[in-house]
Amino acid sequence: MKIVIDRAALLKPLGHVQSVVERRNTIPILSNVLLKAADGRLSLSTTDMDMDIVESVACDVSETGVVTVPAHTLYDIVRKLPEGSDVELAATGDVSRVTIRAGRSNFSLPALMPEEFPALSGDALPNSFVISAADICMLIDRTRFAISTEETRYYLNGIYLHAAEANGVKVLRAVATDGHRLARVQMPLPDGAEEMPGVIVPRKAVNEIYKLIGEVEGDVTVSLSDTKLRVAFEDTVVTTKLIDGTFPDYERVIPAGNDKMLYVDRQRFSEAVDRVATISTEKSRSVKLAVGSGNLVLSASSPDNGTAQEEVEVDYGASDLEIGFNSKYLLDITGQIEGERAVFKLADQASPTIILDQDDESALYVLMPMRV
Amino acid sequence: MKIVIDRAALLKPLGHVQSVVERRNTIPILSNVLLKAADGRLSLSTTDMDMDIVESVACDVSETGVVTVPAHTLYDIVRKLPEGSDVELAATGDVSRVTIRAGRSNFSLPALMPEEFPALSGDALPNSFVISAADICMLIDRTRFAISTEETRYYLNGIYLHAAEANGVKVLRAVATDGHRLARVQMPLPDGAEEMPGVIVPRKAVNEIYKLIGEVEGDVTVSLSDTKLRVAFEDTVVTTKLIDGTFPDYERVIPAGNDKMLYVDRQRFSEAVDRVATISTEKSRSVKLAVGSGNLVLSASSPDNGTAQEEVEVDYGASDLEIGFNSKYLLDITGQIEGERAVFKLADQASPTIILDQDDESALYVLMPMRV
Repeated sequence: MKIVIDRAALLKPLGHVQSVVERRNTIPILSNVLLKAADGRLSLSTTDMDMDIVESVACDVSETGVVTVPAHTLYDIVRKLPEGSDVELAATGDVSRVTIRAGRSNFSLPALMPEEFPALSGDALPNSFVISAADICMLIDRTRFAISTEETRYYLNGIYLHAAEANGVKVLRAVATDGHRLARVQMPLPDGAEEMPGVIVPRKAVNEIYKLIGEVEGDVTVSLSDTKLRVAFEDTVVTTKLIDGTFPDYERVIPAGNDKMLYVDRQRFSEAVDRVATISTEKSRSVKLAVGSGNLVLSASSPDNGTAQEEVEVDYGASDLEIGFNSKYLLDITGQIEGERAVFKLADQASPTIILDQDDESALYVLMPMRV
Repeated sequence: MKIVIDRAALLKPLGHVQSVVERRNTIPILSNVLLKAADGRLSLSTTDMDMDIVESVACDVSETGVVTVPAHTLYDIVRKLPEGSDVELAATGDVSRVTIRAGRSNFSLPALMPEEFPALSGDALPNSFVISAADICMLIDRTRFAISTEETRYYLNGIYLHAAEANGVKVLRAVATDGHRLARVQMPLPDGAEEMPGVIVPRKAVNEIYKLIGEVEGDVTVSLSDTKLRVAFEDTVVTTKLIDGTFPDYERVIPAGNDKMLYVDRQRFSEAVDRVATISTEKSRSVKLAVGSGNLVLSASSPDNGTAQEEVEVDYGASDLEIGFNSKYLLDITGQIEGERAVFKLADQASPTIILDQDDESALYVLMPMRV
């Protein structure tokens, strides 16, 4: 193999693919990036056995070939090369070493046999639809904070993506929950997604896809089966295994009878919660909301830190209620709301509360109360 | 006690004094800031028993008094209050609680008795001189990277500040070393410093003083005895105990006979070292310099990572030499040099090397070689 490529053109895809590679690997080949040079392009692939990413870039190929080199080391080298450098990647004979040249720099990296590199999941996936990058980012951004980190509840360690119906309209829904809070966001179902199975996309894949797609404008293609999901855009294809489990029946968690409506200025409310929570113990982080006609009193206390209290003007017409929440969970949710006002649908101090953006009902949050 | 003060006016000194307070304290009072209101000013003090800081600020005092409250909690509260708020701090009766009010926020913090607060070091210090804040920052910045972190060599855990003579000129010198590298920087001796004892200023105090003085323009007053050093500026006084030990005779470490002069472009050299060091093992970080007439070859190799080599144009007229260095130490030093060219004074591959800024001989660095 022998190619020449502009440093910046190589750095971008290398930055993307190296991100999937774990720092410590018991299987040495998983530390490597697979580089294939052919037809005027370089293709770069990495995998952690659960997900893989393939990206390609145009370059000057003077000799076709396939090699694997340590992904992080190659990335660090290319990153440190001067801007505007032409980088030459070359391997000869048994491809056990790859040389990198740029200007007066020469590197020689140990290479592992390309045959050892795990076969990537190139199989066709039956369901496929097109969706804007901005929509995928929105679905992820509004739900991923609620993904459970408890490994024993592995079926909650991802975002549940599925087709559903809401008020007679077909929607694509993303749901995540850790048992304490639930985030459900939906958008009109893209064409072609009608038959898609409900799938649980694991956290690492969610985060990698979000990072990659954050840079993309325009549309991406999502393909899936009941075991794999693939996202393709520009010169990049990301494929991930799905979590093999059953997502709980989340609709049962969303209360239907909450009729006490509390309207708050989202920003002022968030800032007040943050202030009052300064006093909460680090462990419980609890704040109490005492809500009465037109008025909300936030309070917190701890034996070591003292007490805090703040009044917030609100719209509220139902009977007085006191309810406690984990302030971090509350701030996670209000941080997701972009409109001016948030709506709390309350029932009583022991029941889950629904939180909505007053201007945008596509996202719904459920928060369990705490005893305070 | 009862005062009212603008949030920003309180936040600034509070930010300064809370920085000295450790997160975990076995002695509860050391978590607290001592607040004294009198004569139209609030004075704030904290201490960790090794150093203390006292800062004062004008405010509206409607009732004089003294209280102590948890420093980090008070800082967090004030930080989170809305910009432009008027903050009321008040305590009544037995001063076991302090209330904080701003707008609709109310906090009550547990207070400890002011009598428990350790007496601060207010004694007069015999030696005193005035120096610009910029000069103190320069002395600290160019030496602190070389401070030893080995607790057993406690006498190296700070910067050695002393009066000396260089080429017949009296200078104030700062020296730090960890046995692998040494940094020595000097400036004309300020008036009044002629009789100062040589003192070792501990690392934490060095870093706190640097943070505080980075914001200051103009002059600061330094006072010292052989056990304490005090820095005073604007409304702030920082006093620290000194390290009770003997700094080694560092002049013996600085070689006098190094006659092989190597001149490098500081930036190009640093970037090349950084690139080549990508290949060094994380443990040794070694790079080899092979220097010959007009030419320097940097190289590194490791069994796992491969090899790297880069040529750099240099001015060198002495006999060929190969010498190895820890790349991190090398970059720490070249990172301190502001001029275009760095000068290496070399002897042989086993002897310490002197590194200088070609344009500015006030700073001198000594680096021990590594076997490569």
